[in-house]
This record gives sequence, C-alpha cells and structure tokens, in this order.
Amino acid sequence: MSRQARGGPVGVRRHPERGHYDAETIHAIMDEALVCHLGVVIGGEPWVLPTIHARVGDQVYVHGALAAASLKAMAAPAPCCLTVTLVDGLVLARSAFNHSLNYRSVVVRGMGTLVVDPAEKRMALQALVEHVAPGRWEDARPPSALELKTTQMVRLPLAGATAKVRAGPVRDDAEDLGWPHWAGVLPLTVTAGAAERDAQLANPTVPTPEYLVHYARRRR
Amino acid sequence: MSRQARGGPVGVRRHPERGHYDAETIHAIMDEALVCHLGVVIGGEPWVLPTIHARVGDQVYVHGALAAASLKAMAAPAPCCLTVTLVDGLVLARSAFNHSLNYRSVVVRGMGTLVVDPAEKRMALQALVEHVAPGRWEDARPPSALELKTTQMVRLPLAGATAKVRAGPVRDDAEDLGWPHWAGVLPLTVTAGAAERDAQLANPTVPTPEYLVHYARRRR
Repeated sequence: MSRQARGGPVGVRRHPERGHYDAETIHAIMDEALVCHLGVVIGGEPWVLPTIHARVGDQVYVHGALAAASLKAMAAPAPCCLTVTLVDGLVLARSAFNHSLNYRSVVVRGMGTLVVDPAEKRMALQALVEHVAPGRWEDARPPSALELKTTQMVRLPLAGATAKVRAGPVRDDAEDLGWPHWAGVLPLTVTAGAAERDAQLANPTVPTPEYLVHYARRRR
Repeated sequence: MSRQARGGPVGVRRHPERGHYDAETIHAIMDEALVCHLGVVIGGEPWVLPTIHARVGDQVYVHGALAAASLKAMAAPAPCCLTVTLVDGLVLARSAFNHSLNYRSVVVRGMGTLVVDPAEKRMALQALVEHVAPGRWEDARPPSALELKTTQMVRLPLAGATAKVRAGPVRDDAEDLGWPHWAGVLPLTVTAGAAERDAQLANPTVPTPEYLVHYARRRR
C-alpha cells in the first residue's frame, strides 16, 4: 500500500494551480456536496457507488445496510476513495480543446473503520440527517435500538484529502482570440423546488419547515 | 476477474425494485448526467475521479491528458467502474431511519479500450462537447492534429450497466404515521444562470447562443 492511502494527501499533478490542501476549503466542499461517490476494491475490481456522507470535524461518515458489500469492503479495513464533486458551470472556450467545467472536488483516500460504539453511531446518523437538511433531526422520529443495530456505519479520516478547484473565465490560447463565435461561462446551481407534503400527514396543517422553504446547499 | 466485469450487468441486490436494466432508462440517465465518477484500481488501491463522459450508442467515452494515470489504468485494459448519479430530491420521512433521496444512478462496469483511430477520437471529442452543450460543436474551433494527439480517449461498453432509481413519496412504517411533524419530498434540480460572455470577444455584439439561453440537462 502506498503512503497516500495511510493518510497523507496526494498532490495534484495535472493543473497544480487547482490543488488545495487546507481544511477550510476541503470542509466547505464536503459540506456543500449532498452525495459522494465511494470507491472500493472487491476481488481486485473497482466499485464506485453513490451515497450520502457527513463530515464531523476531520472525519467523514458513510452508512448503509448491514449487508452492504461496499461498506464491508471499506471497513475490512481496506484502502478506499471517497470523492465529492460540485459542478459550478460550463466553460465554453473558443476552441473545442479548451472547453472545461468550473468545479470543486475533494478526493479522500484512506482506510475505513467500522463504528461499533452505539453513541458514535447515533451521533453520525444525526450528522447524516443534518447534512441532508440542517434542522431536520429535531423533527424526525429518532432511531430505535434495532434500527441502529441494522445500520452499518464507517468512519474515514480526512487526513488524506485533496481539493481541486477550477473557477473563473475561459482560458483560450492567444491565437484563438480572433474566433468570431460566442465564448464564456454558463453558471450551474442546484436549486430546490417547492416542498411536497406527504398525503398522509397526521397534522395536515403543520407548516413546511423553515429549513426547507429556504433550502440551499451552499451555506451563506 | 468476475463475469460481471467482462460485460454482464450486475443485479441490484438491495431494493431490487429500484433496479433497471433496459437501454432506454440507462441511456437517458447517462445523457442527463453532466459528469461521471470513474473508478480504477492502481497498485491495488481504488481511485475515484470526476470527469465528463459522452455516450455514443452503447459505448461511453471519457478523455483526459496523455499522462492521466486514471485513463492509463483504465485502458491497460483493466476492469473499471463508471458511475453517474442524478439527485432528484430529499425524501424527509417521519423516522430518521426512513430518510432517503430520490435519485437515478447508473453503474457501468467493464474493460476500457484505448481509442487509437483518429477519426473515432475526433467523433468522441465532438460527442463530449455536445454532451456538455448540444449545439456547441458548430461554434467551437475544431481540434488540431496536435490537440487530438495529446488527448487520451478511452471507450467502455455499456453492456455491464445497471440503473437504480428511487422516486416518489416518503415510505414510513405504519406505526410512524401518527408522528406530528412535517414529512414529504423536497425536489432538487440543476439550473443554469445567465450566460457570462467572455470579456475579450472578437465580436462583442454576438448574441448568446440559443442552446445556452434555454439550457437544461433534462431533455424534454
């Protein structure tokens, strides 16, 4: 196993100016991203599965059913790779070659650890619900002992995390600047629609919670 | 290597009702997703990197710089896993345990092949640009022979693809239906803002292309 998987961040080789290694940048991207893509090796082959994550300090948690093969592989313990990506815009250059995306991504490489302590498991489950919608935990029926038992929770240290960020305008070669067509950036955002209340609410007049009315992934 | 990596789709074991194996569903999800997460094994360890993909028939293409280690590993040839995920909404159940996401994802497992034919490489590059913004290829300066040469292109068959879809309302246990708090779904979409024209356009009065004014990932 390489040094990196044991916890050291991996340097960004291509476009090194896009690399970021500070906790503030890494944490902000991880918190804004709703889902991650978790990579594990099973029988020598790669598996990449989407799942929800939650950062607590310099650790990240993922969960799944007790039988989930990906989490079992991760918590063997074995090297895994957890990647989050936010796409901020299309970069439409003059040349096809210089087309790009504005994005912010984090790659976390390290060894997963199975969480066995029920208190930590419960804390991480709360963090996962709050990651999805801050304020939601207070409104949800808490997990039962059996629900906690049938949930597999895995912890991964952020020590092996690297962020990569591309932002700003198109970067065309000087000899392409005379090209007559439009060039520029198209910003993209994740936006929430109107909350759709369940048809069977016990209290049909309960208002839509404030944390859903003004929902945004990007914290201001 | 397992049978699956050679091209057979992998059955969805958890929530089998969410599994889809038809080309129509798989193609629509792959086309709507702007980026994918590509998983490869390098030195026994998993790497998951975000990149743009483009589907052409029952093949998917990804590209990168000539030196990109992930593409080299993929085209060894070696088993790889390409995953795309669209998040359609938050599912805010009464119980913390039944919280979920509405999503559509595709997992493609198979062996990558390096594209060596310049004509196929050019076709795939066009497909990548059109995947990002349909209509853009016509407005972009075409790739030069050198640009084509320094681009690494890898093809992966969709034969080993599986889609997983969760849609619809919250699904709470019967005994939770009396819970007094709000429950329901918060829809999420990727939306485009106003296009930002480059400051150095050769023709400053060129209008914003129609394909950016009405940009949407979801084809109607």
